[in-house]
Amino acid sequence: MSDIFVGIDLGATNIKFGIFDDELNLLSKGSVPTAADMGAEVVVEKIGQTIEELLSEVQKNPDDITTIGMGSPGPALYRKGIIVKAVNLPKFSNTPIAKLVSSRLGSKPIIFENDANTACFGEYTLGAGKGAKDMVFFTLGTGIGGAIIHDGKLVQGCDENGGELGHMIVFPGGRLCNCGQHGCVEAYASATTTAKRATEAIEAGAISSLKNTLDEKGEITSKDIYEHLEQGDSLAKEITEKTAEALGLVCVNMLHATEPEEIVFSGGMIAAGDVLLSRIKHYFNKYVWNIKEEKTEICFATLGEDSGIIGAAALAKELAGKPD
Amino acid sequence: MSDIFVGIDLGATNIKFGIFDDELNLLSKGSVPTAADMGAEVVVEKIGQTIEELLSEVQKNPDDITTIGMGSPGPALYRKGIIVKAVNLPKFSNTPIAKLVSSRLGSKPIIFENDANTACFGEYTLGAGKGAKDMVFFTLGTGIGGAIIHDGKLVQGCDENGGELGHMIVFPGGRLCNCGQHGCVEAYASATTTAKRATEAIEAGAISSLKNTLDEKGEITSKDIYEHLEQGDSLAKEITEKTAEALGLVCVNMLHATEPEEIVFSGGMIAAGDVLLSRIKHYFNKYVWNIKEEKTEICFATLGEDSGIIGAAALAKELAGKPD
Repeated sequence: MSDIFVGIDLGATNIKFGIFDDELNLLSKGSVPTAADMGAEVVVEKIGQTIEELLSEVQKNPDDITTIGMGSPGPALYRKGIIVKAVNLPKFSNTPIAKLVSSRLGSKPIIFENDANTACFGEYTLGAGKGAKDMVFFTLGTGIGGAIIHDGKLVQGCDENGGELGHMIVFPGGRLCNCGQHGCVEAYASATTTAKRATEAIEAGAISSLKNTLDEKGEITSKDIYEHLEQGDSLAKEITEKTAEALGLVCVNMLHATEPEEIVFSGGMIAAGDVLLSRIKHYFNKYVWNIKEEKTEICFATLGEDSGIIGAAALAKELAGKPD
Repeated sequence: MSDIFVGIDLGATNIKFGIFDDELNLLSKGSVPTAADMGAEVVVEKIGQTIEELLSEVQKNPDDITTIGMGSPGPALYRKGIIVKAVNLPKFSNTPIAKLVSSRLGSKPIIFENDANTACFGEYTLGAGKGAKDMVFFTLGTGIGGAIIHDGKLVQGCDENGGELGHMIVFPGGRLCNCGQHGCVEAYASATTTAKRATEAIEAGAISSLKNTLDEKGEITSKDIYEHLEQGDSLAKEITEKTAEALGLVCVNMLHATEPEEIVFSGGMIAAGDVLLSRIKHYFNKYVWNIKEEKTEICFATLGEDSGIIGAAALAKELAGKPD
């Protein structure tokens, strides 16, 4: 009986798997570490084996799969199912991963999607965005990923780069971003750039309790910043304010673009908790118009690391309901 | 035989009408001036009469109408068919215009939509966006209207204010906008604010051939600016550059949001022609990332004043194809 949906989250550190029933209940899950020496054949075999094991745990086998969903970071040609390059998988180059995985599991239908999109679709289906029709999603990690859902569908864009919200410009002429633009929200508010701004400030002579951390560990993380913020460090406060200001501004701009019911933030940075969320809302309220009261809610994701596998499986279920 | 679609564009100056066949060919069109003393009854009767006349010109009558589409500026409750207030129609207040017009024409189905959305849908269906699936639209007039089409559908937003693209913030902390925000694209790049910036600069002592215009006419229009720009006036150039910069920036941000195939500018300002369009593209290219070549095209609208009636009729046709 074909009543199983498989969600795969092909990450830079781990490949995660979830086996779901047709109501998206998680039956079993697992992960394997991503290793730099893995070629496509090894990865596909590991994916196949792990899924078979997870299926057998719940007395199922690949024949029971209706559709497979898989999320992966770019650059990729998602509609064609091809990974152009993969962080931490240097042997991957124009690898037709979707076709290979599908073949390994009995030529089951597969949907291949950007990993920010799958995580967003997970939160939309079962997490912070549940019940909303329109949603905007940010992941605050090494970079800032983004995704938009309009009327229940992911906004994919004319060249598969819709929802690259980390590269919306909030401070024109501002900090240089890895993408070559100046003033992107990613240049201020990712976990990496938040920490980097603190490091730069200390190196430029700012007084901060974070200086000891930098001297001892040789680096500062966004977690350090929130810890020192709790202890009242003024630089930690200044850095967090700018992070929140950049995020508040991008929320105002997305309000005026697609006017979502929910703007959901996810990723390691949300561990900071209310100290960050309340400041994002503060800057949203500071910058937003006063014409009307807004219904858009700004909140944190609720599914944690499972959002990717849940979203991939939920997309697989969506696909299964559609004609070719 | 019900094979007629009616498009109505309820503007501040005129109410425009178009009678279309089921392939959206324009059979007849007309308009009546909007007058401040008109109450809802008068307006509805004028709409009914004019449509009857236009139908009879092509040997049709209200029975032949399949669906009516009507666009109107806000504030309105579009899903409920209610105009909350109307510029130039001060007697309108919470007027259930959609229901009234429908009743006047034999209780035909009616769709009621924001006028920037109807104009956008017109350009999408038969104008500059024809053939695209995803489009972003700006009208550069007294204010800046906006609209987004994703996968063939207008983005309406959770509170009917999606696509308020004139209020995306391009210069945080910048010029005060009518909406209460600072630094909106509308505060720089509408016809009104473009002209206003020139006036302010002259009043602050800027040297410009536009000073004579201001002295003679008591005001400057955006048209004056483009005329003086052609004659080499440096202030006119400076003002136009800032208009184009604000528009180029909002194009970059919409590229990273919904990544449309087409970004279409319409409204009186596009009469400036290539001198404006080429500078918008210049700033888009200046601010955009260099990671990949972009497929998004920036262009001007092609339907002129008919975009509203065409879009309203096209939406009416869309609606007709759908179950309730």
